[in-house]
Amino acid sequence: MAAVLRKLIQGRLPALAGVLCRRSGNEGHLFLNSSGSTLMQPRCGYSSPTESVIVEMDKATGVALLKLNIPPVNSLSLPLLTELAIVLDKLEMDKHCRGLILTSAVPNIFSAGLNLFDMMDKPNEHYSEFWRAVQEIWIKLYGSSLANIAAINGSSPAGGCLLALCSDYRIMANNPHFTIGLNETRLGIVAPFWFKDTLLNTVGKRTTEISLNLGALYSPTEALSLHLVDRLVPETQLLSAATEEMGRWLQVPDHARQITKSMIRKSTLEGLLNQREADIKNFVEFISRDSIQKSLQFYAQSLQKQKQHIHPPSSSCRQQISSVTFARSPWYSLIQRS
Amino acid sequence: MAAVLRKLIQGRLPALAGVLCRRSGNEGHLFLNSSGSTLMQPRCGYSSPTESVIVEMDKATGVALLKLNIPPVNSLSLPLLTELAIVLDKLEMDKHCRGLILTSAVPNIFSAGLNLFDMMDKPNEHYSEFWRAVQEIWIKLYGSSLANIAAINGSSPAGGCLLALCSDYRIMANNPHFTIGLNETRLGIVAPFWFKDTLLNTVGKRTTEISLNLGALYSPTEALSLHLVDRLVPETQLLSAATEEMGRWLQVPDHARQITKSMIRKSTLEGLLNQREADIKNFVEFISRDSIQKSLQFYAQSLQKQKQHIHPPSSSCRQQISSVTFARSPWYSLIQRS
Amino acid sequence: MAAVLRKLIQGRLPALAGVLCRRSGNEGHLFLNSSGSTLMQPRCGYSSPTESVIVEMDKATGVALLKLNIPPVNSLSLPLLTELAIVLDKLEMDKHCRGLILTSAVPNIFSAGLNLFDMMDKPNEHYSEFWRAVQEIWIKLYGSSLANIAAINGSSPAGGCLLALCSDYRIMANNPHFTIGLNETRLGIVAPFWFKDTLLNTVGKRTTEISLNLGALYSPTEALSLHLVDRLVPETQLLSAATEEMGRWLQVPDHARQITKSMIRKSTLEGLLNQREADIKNFVEFISRDSIQKSLQFYAQSLQKQKQHIHPPSSSCRQQISSVTFARSPWYSLIQRS
Repeated sequence: MAAVLRKLIQGRLPALAGVLCRRSGNEGHLFLNSSGSTLMQPRCGYSSPTESVIVEMDKATGVALLKLNIPPVNSLSLPLLTELAIVLDKLEMDKHCRGLILTSAVPNIFSAGLNLFDMMDKPNEHYSEFWRAVQEIWIKLYGSSLANIAAINGSSPAGGCLLALCSDYRIMANNPHFTIGLNETRLGIVAPFWFKDTLLNTVGKRTTEISLNLGALYSPTEALSLHLVDRLVPETQLLSAATEEMGRWLQVPDHARQITKSMIRKSTLEGLLNQREADIKNFVEFISRDSIQKSLQFYAQSLQKQKQHIHPPSSSCRQQISSVTFARSPWYSLIQRS
Repeated sequence: MAAVLRKLIQGRLPALAGVLCRRSGNEGHLFLNSSGSTLMQPRCGYSSPTESVIVEMDKATGVALLKLNIPPVNSLSLPLLTELAIVLDKLEMDKHCRGLILTSAVPNIFSAGLNLFDMMDKPNEHYSEFWRAVQEIWIKLYGSSLANIAAINGSSPAGGCLLALCSDYRIMANNPHFTIGLNETRLGIVAPFWFKDTLLNTVGKRTTEISLNLGALYSPTEALSLHLVDRLVPETQLLSAATEEMGRWLQVPDHARQITKSMIRKSTLEGLLNQREADIKNFVEFISRDSIQKSLQFYAQSLQKQKQHIHPPSSSCRQQISSVTFARSPWYSLIQRS
Repeated sequence: MAAVLRKLIQGRLPALAGVLCRRSGNEGHLFLNSSGSTLMQPRCGYSSPTESVIVEMDKATGVALLKLNIPPVNSLSLPLLTELAIVLDKLEMDKHCRGLILTSAVPNIFSAGLNLFDMMDKPNEHYSEFWRAVQEIWIKLYGSSLANIAAINGSSPAGGCLLALCSDYRIMANNPHFTIGLNETRLGIVAPFWFKDTLLNTVGKRTTEISLNLGALYSPTEALSLHLVDRLVPETQLLSAATEEMGRWLQVPDHARQITKSMIRKSTLEGLLNQREADIKNFVEFISRDSIQKSLQFYAQSLQKQKQHIHPPSSSCRQQISSVTFARSPWYSLIQRS
């Protein structure tokens, strides 16, 4: 019966799905290479021989496994955001793709968030382009028509936490050294209103208030108790647990799940869609101030010095992540709903 | 003092109560027969000799016990919805009535939700009338000025769950064979925005999102942990527990409780009241499509065949309910907030 | 780095902080006497030799300890509200002040809420002034730019609970004789929409609905389980726990915490700020009715008689508080969002 209904209702879906995902003009499909990963355009200047976004498609189930792969900490740079947007568009357009599992190919880190160097010493056009790319990823992920599960296999502060919050379901590796949270205030900066709204839809208003005010980073156990993540599993079982959970989501006919998801997330998405340009303008106005630029340069220089003195291999796992995260922790966001 | 205040404030109440319950022109009172149940107009064509809505009024406390009584699964058909609306109006108008306990006279089922056959092979006027009746029951129950407790003595999927969600407090029989939830997506259909809003006001946004996307049906224990119901008791103690709980609600002066309830539920009620006609139009446009009608006929025929082969008495309690629920599971709703 | 950022961003803050706290024209600073408490203008007719609002400023940390000191139950009278508003303004203006701990100097009671006698037998101008003062305290406390922790060292019904709800964090003495909650409906009156919104932002919609409808007062343990308070400690450790918790909040750069707090509380504050005059008009119209005034006089006379017959010292702690609270329980609020 579900199949029949699906077919019948199909004519009605595009308009509704459009609410979830404003599809770009891309009409391409995924081309898989021999290892199952996606063939992408050149890496936009990354020196690493590996791909920055690895996609492994399971043709039998229609589930794409997407791994962020920008060592050391999966910083969300403009090239990565651009590539990620293209990959997400292709998956969205692929009629055989029903689900997306988002994870990291870098040990101990899911993503450290936005990249500092995209916000330093650049023309205003660059800041504008960067912020638009950050918005774009949020719109594509939070509004994805795919069933979307985050397999959080490492620390996930700030923008990294946001990526996870965009999913339909979050499973985290139960490693007490990992942390997750929107910790922007600890660095003297502020999560923008759409980060806040995404957190609020997940953990409620009171936990959002405490969490954002304190810039709290939570252990997996704490995150579970606050419903910031939905389930903890041993690290070795993370992908199998995510695949199993995806099975539950794919039991539901896609069109019914998509209309429902749209109904629930629509107003939050429109919160940004209705004022993207103003949001970008606010960001550019702020980040381009001499005072802010000087602060960023000062900060970057201090990182440079840190790098020369730190020998991460001898540190414990937690210390490594902390230092790396700190070293690359970005200017996640500085704006606010006007 | 409370009594004095009540008297003093009385002059201000009608306007406020009007927000809670748009009273119809009915000015009648309940007429009780010898068994304490309400005398109603003819049963609108039901062949059963029993009443479809049984009302037992406790004159001492002002608490009405309302039992849905349409075997096999308390399907919400147009005649039942119409009769229920009349009963609710009369209770609302009865100055001696302060509270309402809603339960089922049918073993193992609270209500299976909307009736399939009211959405098949009918003129558009019928679909329109049916959907208006569904809206009406929600408006009357969710906006009732009475203290309203659901005594959930059986499974309660989809529209049945909605009835329970309209109450001020939910007590469920702790029978692991019973389930409750808005499971529409499992059937390829979608709960409308006001079902969603009612769930959201009860369990919060995140649980609503997971619950509706997965079309989840929960055991009583799960439902309690999600606050979908407020309390579990052994089946034999359900009515006494509901009566005892009602006592707590009736300790509060009616006018203060009513103004407070109105303040909290008003905006959700207005969500539908402000666009009832558009909501009906959407539903009729959808359900009257040839493709949808063919699908429903196909579905109804498959049920007919099932009935000839199924022998429920030999099944376990749970299997019975599942098959029956499936056999009569309706097109709960297919529309969405525009 | 935080210090640098703070300096850099400073130029942007006033406008944002303005959202949190509409600063009055007061530009004064706190003047501390030898005991560390604030020198205030005359006590507005209070016969008690003690101050009604005691402020002890810790210059080293910038944390002000504010103690309500109007025996027997810290009723929120117009003079107290006025004095409290001045103190809050001064603290807000004091550049060295970063945090506020709110507690009571009266044993066993945090605050019993609004004062009855400000709503009886007065000209309309008085009712208007009183209600504006109640609004003002809520706006100043809920919108305070300071880190604000409530150290709840006694019962806290109705308006007393509201004071606690305005803080960023609530620690309550774990004394089973204490209760907390917005219990207005039990007295036949109603919490106004901004009381309701403040509760809703703290405990969510469903708990707000049950709590306000039933006028529930909770024990500390119950309050913790509902997240009405954030932590329980033994009574003797309350202030040290509040001070320790304040340390966590002061680790976050003030400007980032303030912008974040503003982003989260702004829409709730605007709910009242956009209709203060209508809210006052509603209140005055209601409270000045002959019928309501007669009711209040009747109530006041009954209290007078009670006082002559009650010997609190012989009662248990809980009974004392109950009787006192009842004896002075005020007309917390009677209006509703139009």
